[in-house]
Amino acid sequence: MFLRIDHVGIACHDLEKTIALYESTFGVTVVAREVNEEQGVREAMLHVADGEGGGSYIQLIEPLGPDTPVGKFLAKRGEGLHHVAYGVSDVRGALTEIAATGVRLIDKNPRHGSMGSSIAFLHPKDVGGVLTELVQARQAE
Amino acid sequence: MFLRIDHVGIACHDLEKTIALYESTFGVTVVAREVNEEQGVREAMLHVADGEGGGSYIQLIEPLGPDTPVGKFLAKRGEGLHHVAYGVSDVRGALTEIAATGVRLIDKNPRHGSMGSSIAFLHPKDVGGVLTELVQARQAE
Repeated sequence: MFLRIDHVGIACHDLEKTIALYESTFGVTVVAREVNEEQGVREAMLHVADGEGGGSYIQLIEPLGPDTPVGKFLAKRGEGLHHVAYGVSDVRGALTEIAATGVRLIDKNPRHGSMGSSIAFLHPKDVGGVLTELVQARQAE
Repeated sequence: MFLRIDHVGIACHDLEKTIALYESTFGVTVVAREVNEEQGVREAMLHVADGEGGGSYIQLIEPLGPDTPVGKFLAKRGEGLHHVAYGVSDVRGALTEIAATGVRLIDKNPRHGSMGSSIAFLHPKDVGGVLTELVQARQAE
């Protein structure tokens, strides 16, 4: 089902400062920036590697406000790892397969993700405490 | 510097139960199991994808006891994402480059990681709250 680790999502208070940290420390570069109002985040994708059906990225996410999910995460847990996303070739098919195993879906239908991707989140309580995302890259559609 | 996302490290209370969850939900399979006394963990690597210089994995880690770093992590934060590891071709060279930027190293010298790899951790306080690991796969040495 999984083609790659698509990205790790990292919550931060200050997107520009964290981008600068990653660029200067690791030499990674930003390949996309977006504001996702639906998810309440401002984000940047930093390229790590190419992969099957899409690439691997570090996704830095800054909440648009304290009452967003990521804003609440930061208040409770501080900056750090927020979620992991796996690349799939067919996000709808993967959701159907996963739901059949009894894992609850946060998104029963895919929604808009970074760089034109289709994404869906699974419920962390059913995946060992890990907020898990599926990503179908735009070029794989 | 980074060749790939080598793995995400996920802390769990019960390794066998969590392996079974990942296998049945996502169809991933265990390719290595180890006890790492130095790090105080029992672990399993589940294969996600092949990549440059090594693969991408889900690393499930169960603490050997409550007084280990992962045992303390579980007591404080519960099960979930623990660290992220990036593949590099030369872990010693990468440590030198990173230390020069002012980021503190947990490991000034590489130590033994999963599947014969050489690894080193960076201090999370200097990497936006993320426990960050570098991995040089055995075959890249």
